[in-house]
Amino acid sequence: MPLVNELTPSGQRLTAVYSLFGEKEEAWEKARDICIEQTIEFPQDLVEAPMIRDTIFGKIEHFQRVGDRKYEAVISFAIEISGMELPQLLNVLFGNISMKLGIRLESFELPDILSKVFEGPCCGRRGLRELLGVPKRPLIATALKPMGLSPRQLADLAYKLILGGIDILKDDHGLADQAFCPFKERIKYCSEAVERANRETGFKSIYMPNITGPASAITKQAKYVKKNGAGGLLISPGLTGFDIMNQLAADKGLRLPIMCHPSFLGSYVLNPTAGFSHAVLFGQIARLAGADVTVYPNFGGRFPFTKDECLSIAEATGRPMASIAPIFPSPSGGMKLERIGEVIDVYGKEVVILIGGDLHCRGSDLVENTRFFRKRVEKL
Amino acid sequence: MPLVNELTPSGQRLTAVYSLFGEKEEAWEKARDICIEQTIEFPQDLVEAPMIRDTIFGKIEHFQRVGDRKYEAVISFAIEISGMELPQLLNVLFGNISMKLGIRLESFELPDILSKVFEGPCCGRRGLRELLGVPKRPLIATALKPMGLSPRQLADLAYKLILGGIDILKDDHGLADQAFCPFKERIKYCSEAVERANRETGFKSIYMPNITGPASAITKQAKYVKKNGAGGLLISPGLTGFDIMNQLAADKGLRLPIMCHPSFLGSYVLNPTAGFSHAVLFGQIARLAGADVTVYPNFGGRFPFTKDECLSIAEATGRPMASIAPIFPSPSGGMKLERIGEVIDVYGKEVVILIGGDLHCRGSDLVENTRFFRKRVEKL
Repeated sequence: MPLVNELTPSGQRLTAVYSLFGEKEEAWEKARDICIEQTIEFPQDLVEAPMIRDTIFGKIEHFQRVGDRKYEAVISFAIEISGMELPQLLNVLFGNISMKLGIRLESFELPDILSKVFEGPCCGRRGLRELLGVPKRPLIATALKPMGLSPRQLADLAYKLILGGIDILKDDHGLADQAFCPFKERIKYCSEAVERANRETGFKSIYMPNITGPASAITKQAKYVKKNGAGGLLISPGLTGFDIMNQLAADKGLRLPIMCHPSFLGSYVLNPTAGFSHAVLFGQIARLAGADVTVYPNFGGRFPFTKDECLSIAEATGRPMASIAPIFPSPSGGMKLERIGEVIDVYGKEVVILIGGDLHCRGSDLVENTRFFRKRVEKL
Repeated sequence: MPLVNELTPSGQRLTAVYSLFGEKEEAWEKARDICIEQTIEFPQDLVEAPMIRDTIFGKIEHFQRVGDRKYEAVISFAIEISGMELPQLLNVLFGNISMKLGIRLESFELPDILSKVFEGPCCGRRGLRELLGVPKRPLIATALKPMGLSPRQLADLAYKLILGGIDILKDDHGLADQAFCPFKERIKYCSEAVERANRETGFKSIYMPNITGPASAITKQAKYVKKNGAGGLLISPGLTGFDIMNQLAADKGLRLPIMCHPSFLGSYVLNPTAGFSHAVLFGQIARLAGADVTVYPNFGGRFPFTKDECLSIAEATGRPMASIAPIFPSPSGGMKLERIGEVIDVYGKEVVILIGGDLHCRGSDLVENTRFFRKRVEKL
């Protein structure tokens, strides 16, 4: 096949670390396979063009044994094949190989040029702390629920929760635009309630409504949220696609911090010999795609994530990542007030502690329960 | 908690079938958990409102043992909680429980009212056959590749492939908007090439360019595709989100058939005791979300899908599904010309046979190779 290729490669490469499971030869074959499957998807022998062979093929930069029937490969890709767009970047990292066994994406590293294209979160840890007026302590968050309440009932809850001192009040991720709780009314009433409570407390707490689309409406929904004074957005990129979150984070007219919810994403991490590491999905990718806070189920709650997995997410939210700001980990999923001390011991102060149902269990006075939550965190 | 609930339920319910893995009590607990985790996510005891308990909670309609440490539960949900929107419908079916072990969504059934909201594919099997002028035989498809070619080089390939008699020519799913192959040029040159070849053959073959976003641009990309005369779209909903595909399928100004690519979705199906069944993800959900053709890796190729899994997808593309039209299964992923007979034996004639790289391997004359492909299919 005669080819004249117009690509002038920058030489900058995206690198990704994969765990490969199996005996050495099998693992090596998987590494070679990634180089082709994630790029040309074509019989190698038919490709004569040196530019394609040298630049488009992925390259194995490093390969080593890291355990029993477990190898690690560092594979690099020319950044040009990402098209400098998030969906195609994810496609390069894990598109077709998501359908193969024994390959797990552990982490990736962006060259400078890509991190300038992807700005990441609009606020990051520092910006969110400034917005909330909370310079040092762990942030506290809860969810508006249960589903089935009307907008006015949720607004009543919102008022009490903010009065009690919650920093970030998110919608439950199941609140969409249901007939029994229409989106616009919910945002209007709850934003008003949060503002009213803030006037009483003097705090700068924020409400993060859930927006899940439909795809054609999601930008309008975000603008409606902004216009009505809510202070942020809750997005489930598993449902909306990661790039919608990315686009909203980059929208200079919005400038709303985003909380990323893990709904529909669990299948990517639950199989230890396939999919994504917890750190890369809920840490690196969420951060790259514009989350300011990444929610995930904490160990010891209702979900099977381990302590090590949770800590690896937290680590990925804060480690250097080109020019992309650190974001907050937010352990959640059946968290209890009695575990606040443990959570701070484990995560330190750069954390958003998200307690949902248990905040309603302590006693019948929701404002008091919430004050207890805040005081516990302020003391530790 | 005093509640006055405004929901007046329709009584119509969405039902979903889950496989639950473990001993009987454990499986039963998982079924009960789905009813709560996928709806209120809140301590049940605190919910007094009868309307929430009766309507918002999921209901176990049926529970039975189906194998060793394997149970099946049919769970129903009030359709109102879906908000009549695809992202929230997916959220109800599998949002939070995606993060739990031992739960696999096998299938779901829509009540009439929901199937009217979700129209599914714009063409379906019958519409696509009419568009292509191929009433009965299996359809044949291939991909424009490898990545690294320029738009003019791809257009040259496109011309040859259509001249040889390909019905559906899709972009490789890795072709985005790379500097070495810009989206607009590619669509323009390749659409022209396909039109030119169609004039020579008299066929009505179509080109389906890949659109993956960015999210803010994808609708514009689809319009550009339409304006330039390409006959369809290739979308990877794992990268874009399912609802973008759904919105494009429902767009009456477009009316372009959509081919759904499985990139980034494999992790949902590879773990046999979690995630989705192959049939529900690549069959039912792809169909509900507007695909006319659902691509998946065939058994015996480069990917680990089994024959039974592949046949279950094909079955789900054709079975009655409220008022949503049947779509085409498209087995792919390392398919070879020598397997055409086997593929037709297994799938019958309602299939899009997608052969990529192997079409280039048979000999150096691509037009001849493609004619061979078509003749083989016409004869069988």
